Amino acid sequence: MQNTIREVIESRTSVGKYQADYQLEAGCIEELVRLANLSPSAYNLQNWRFIAVQSNDGKQALQQAAYGQPQIMQASVTFIVCGLTQGQTFIKETLALSVEKNVMPAEVATAWEDAVEQSHASNEELQRDEAIRSASLAAMTMMLAAKGMGLDSGAMGGFDGQQVSQTFQLADNEIPVMLITIGRAQKDNWSQKIRKPVSEVLSFA
Amino acid sequence: MQNTIREVIESRTSVGKYQADYQLEAGCIEELVRLANLSPSAYNLQNWRFIAVQSNDGKQALQQAAYGQPQIMQASVTFIVCGLTQGQTFIKETLALSVEKNVMPAEVATAWEDAVEQSHASNEELQRDEAIRSASLAAMTMMLAAKGMGLDSGAMGGFDGQQVSQTFQLADNEIPVMLITIGRAQKDNWSQKIRKPVSEVLSFA
Repeated sequence: MQNTIREVIESRTSVGKYQADYQLEAGCIEELVRLANLSPSAYNLQNWRFIAVQSNDGKQALQQAAYGQPQIMQASVTFIVCGLTQGQTFIKETLALSVEKNVMPAEVATAWEDAVEQSHASNEELQRDEAIRSASLAAMTMMLAAKGMGLDSGAMGGFDGQQVSQTFQLADNEIPVMLITIGRAQKDNWSQKIRKPVSEVLSFA
Repeated sequence: MQNTIREVIESRTSVGKYQADYQLEAGCIEELVRLANLSPSAYNLQNWRFIAVQSNDGKQALQQAAYGQPQIMQASVTFIVCGLTQGQTFIKETLALSVEKNVMPAEVATAWEDAVEQSHASNEELQRDEAIRSASLAAMTMMLAAKGMGLDSGAMGGFDGQQVSQTFQLADNEIPVMLITIGRAQKDNWSQKIRKPVSEVLSFA
């Protein structure tokens, strides 16, 4: 990873065509997840999970759930990035990791657990929003990390969520938020698509 | 920006206490938005907008909508990161930018416009999901870009969305997805919170 963050952000594009024979280096998938796992999440819920689909059977099943999109077979790996609802059921266990290491005072952890219980437990929309938010933050970190490692990626939202959940046996509180294909791009992918000018998307207050 | 992407991801933490007297360099806000704006979005909708809150009045109003959290007054700037629904109403205009520059064939743009019309127009949940997804991807890019520029950040989900929408006159199709405080951290912030082991959040298929 020699690239600066600016170069990485500027050069990342969404790739649809991969070199099908490219093999990831050993440990690469774990490293991508280690870095994505460092993303922020509300109340440090860490409400995400990653399924690395790289077997032939896994790819075929995922491709079927993604309306046949060919890049899933070509890419070296496709991650199913899941967001988790029901944070109130697991926040205690998650924050305990930071309390044990004296990163977070125990009374703060208790206050956060109470806050999540009060705000999330009876609010399904908030739980869903939070799952999508956290999984998307982690997904972006993963795509930038991949670019920094000399790999290309593509975020995919076009898939049948119910079919993905069934085929890959997601838990009841896991939402498949995004698929991320990762590998080496072929040469004939599109260039980065043109963005709206900054002046159109930024205002001051 | 001298840091590699790995160093940036590893060293980013969520900051709550800022040096209140730190002033951003000129052009810094625009540069953060320029980089966030390079994030991917479904169908390249670019369905996000950023409000940089840095005036004293703006900060006070935003702090009130965020349950009085003090870091909004301390931070150099707080971005309201909005996600946009109703992508079917503006996709044509957005993709036209890439068609004009020959990055995307006109017939592909037309096909994507039809696809969004068919999938989004009558599906409010999908529109909301898409708004949260895109805004979160852009938010993560912005936080990593900030770290690469020697700045600190903190994502905040704790605010009254309706109050933010009213106070900052968001359009009907704009959802305030996240606040991001940016500035220079004080020395007594918490360390990065401990993450679950990779083996707990990664499986293979």
